[in-house]
Amino acid sequence: QRSYTITLLPGDGIGPEVISVAKDVLLLAGHLEGIKYEFRERLIGGAALDDTGVPLPDETLSAAKQSDAVLLGAVGGYKWDNNDKHLKPETALLGLRQELKVFANLRPASVFPQLVDASTLKRAIAEGVDLMVVRELTGGIYFGKPRGFDTNEDGEEFGFNTEIYAEHEIDRIAHAAFKIARKRRGKLCSVDKANVLEASILWRRRVSAIAQEYPDVELSHMYVDNAAMQLIRNPKQFDTIVTNNIFGDILSDEASMITGSIGMLPSASLGASGPGLFEPIHGSAPDIAGQDKANPFATVLSAAMLLRYGLDEEKAAQRIENAVLDTLNKGFRTGDIYSTGTKLVGCKQLGEEIMKSV
Amino acid sequence: QRSYTITLLPGDGIGPEVISVAKDVLLLAGHLEGIKYEFRERLIGGAALDDTGVPLPDETLSAAKQSDAVLLGAVGGYKWDNNDKHLKPETALLGLRQELKVFANLRPASVFPQLVDASTLKRAIAEGVDLMVVRELTGGIYFGKPRGFDTNEDGEEFGFNTEIYAEHEIDRIAHAAFKIARKRRGKLCSVDKANVLEASILWRRRVSAIAQEYPDVELSHMYVDNAAMQLIRNPKQFDTIVTNNIFGDILSDEASMITGSIGMLPSASLGASGPGLFEPIHGSAPDIAGQDKANPFATVLSAAMLLRYGLDEEKAAQRIENAVLDTLNKGFRTGDIYSTGTKLVGCKQLGEEIMKSV
Ligand SMILES: CC(C)[C@H](C(=O)O)[C@@H](O)C(=O)O
Ligand SMILES: CC(C)[C@H](C(=O)O)[C@@H](O)C(=O)O
Repeated sequence: QRSYTITLLPGDGIGPEVISVAKDVLLLAGHLEGIKYEFRERLIGGAALDDTGVPLPDETLSAAKQSDAVLLGAVGGYKWDNNDKHLKPETALLGLRQELKVFANLRPASVFPQLVDASTLKRAIAEGVDLMVVRELTGGIYFGKPRGFDTNEDGEEFGFNTEIYAEHEIDRIAHAAFKIARKRRGKLCSVDKANVLEASILWRRRVSAIAQEYPDVELSHMYVDNAAMQLIRNPKQFDTIVTNNIFGDILSDEASMITGSIGMLPSASLGASGPGLFEPIHGSAPDIAGQDKANPFATVLSAAMLLRYGLDEEKAAQRIENAVLDTLNKGFRTGDIYSTGTKLVGCKQLGEEIMKSV
Repeated sequence: QRSYTITLLPGDGIGPEVISVAKDVLLLAGHLEGIKYEFRERLIGGAALDDTGVPLPDETLSAAKQSDAVLLGAVGGYKWDNNDKHLKPETALLGLRQELKVFANLRPASVFPQLVDASTLKRAIAEGVDLMVVRELTGGIYFGKPRGFDTNEDGEEFGFNTEIYAEHEIDRIAHAAFKIARKRRGKLCSVDKANVLEASILWRRRVSAIAQEYPDVELSHMYVDNAAMQLIRNPKQFDTIVTNNIFGDILSDEASMITGSIGMLPSASLGASGPGLFEPIHGSAPDIAGQDKANPFATVLSAAMLLRYGLDEEKAAQRIENAVLDTLNKGFRTGDIYSTGTKLVGCKQLGEEIMKSV
């Protein structure tokens, strides 16, 4: 029997509800595939702030580092919205990414045939969309130095940040993206702003150089403003997209919204070695927290990514993904994806229905 | 009779065709409102490169500076795509913006009722969209220093840019945006990434401070990733959006694509004083250049913005806008906005039809 240590970080809002469902599904799929887990649950975000005074306690970080994979719910809520930056729940995410060195953020945006009408895009445009954004996650303007505030000669304040990429940072995310594209439909679109930014010029140069090692992958380049348009005009033109941290933040959210059901979308953040970080792309939804209304699908699908990319347990991953499709086909829906003719259920019951199909 | 000097910069691709139509329309609308013009035509972009070796000749720049307004077609084309950055046609745009100090870029994105089906968004979502993106155009990461390439201790190359905003830069664009919002539906959404970037924290602080002077305008703040989603989920929630240079580049293109007809959308770039720069948001479309297929509406509507914002000639501006609506109502369309039941015409003939309604 294979055995893994998983750190669970339920976090805030609906986090605990969706993590609870995903944990049960992980256990069952693992059991059926001969996998054992040791789960450790730790505090993060607002929950950690309230208990320990910091959003990412050392104890949480070391538990995460010492595990085989980390599954996170969501962080944030009204209560902490006016906190200073270093005391905001969201800061824990940035710290966790950096400390775990998970430089490759994989964000699939797929339109489920059962949910195509949830998209605000016309059916003919949305149907069949299946793309993957590979976002650089531990570099660029998010972490670049110098950064801060200062005062100029006129006594006027200014704020500044540094967009910066070194060759090895670009190379490793490019390699990750080419490998993913190769396993998908063999098309990679690198998004930058090389007509304006030096950091993008280097990005484009390195990605093009690395392309030589992946002759089976078709590489194209696109400016970020055009990419923001093309995602709306014809999202089906994309297979895999690779881009920097800030452009990836914007484009992956845009891409997820074209699917119309962000309650369905998982994500994985991977490093060169060490545990990966897996989480739904949706937030903590404080307005519906504790009401058994949350959609657990995205977290359950994140658990599937955890099995596939984090533990290399492909069979258990597929079991979960098939169970999700089955449950959708049977018509079970939470409120966010409900439509006439389907069966409205709560978070817990949806979890039980998924379990029946695992 | 009021008299104005206008610099025309046809540029590349379809630029000359659409500028020719817009010039005729400007002349006629001006004539009917007692306005005289002196037009000066100058080279820019690829056309200037071929003739003078640089994309923005001094002569073009000084003509532009000495005029009352500048109307630009488009720059760029395959021929110059592999030029070095400082010899790319697009560089002329950046230079022109900086030299004319046009810090406020106004990019309306409105869905014309006659063209609502051209949007890839569902009719119920697209119908009635009427928003204005006010983009900071002469600061931020586009022009921030230090920038460039360097080598670290390991002999590894890196590329870097600086996102930087000083108080006065934020203040002046905020004032511009509040004034525009006040003339529209009184709602302003400021978009930033204040949960990560210091430059955005200062941005949010200054915009909030300046809001005190505009109690009649309702201000909200939104993170850029969320804004990219909300533009797709429900674009009608927006009236006026104000944001920095790079976020404005991305979001204004996204917003224009939701209208489905970027061939219809004009833009204005304004400074504290001196001539404004007016141009369609579409590019030079080298694939259809010289074939009389270009859609001149966006340039004609840019001429209307020139009259309104550049010369304070509201009546002549309205004449042009009404003529555009009339022409649409009569069913005349270029290929990019054609649909069954409408009348397909070329660029020239569309110009003549617009003239009939001025
Ligand atoms: C919360 C925020 C710091 C974070 C980011 O910008 O990376 C979020 O938007 C995301 O995409 O995970
Ligand atoms: C051509 C390019 C430099 C320019 C920009 O990024 O500003 C363009 O995308 C625009 O929006 O006018």
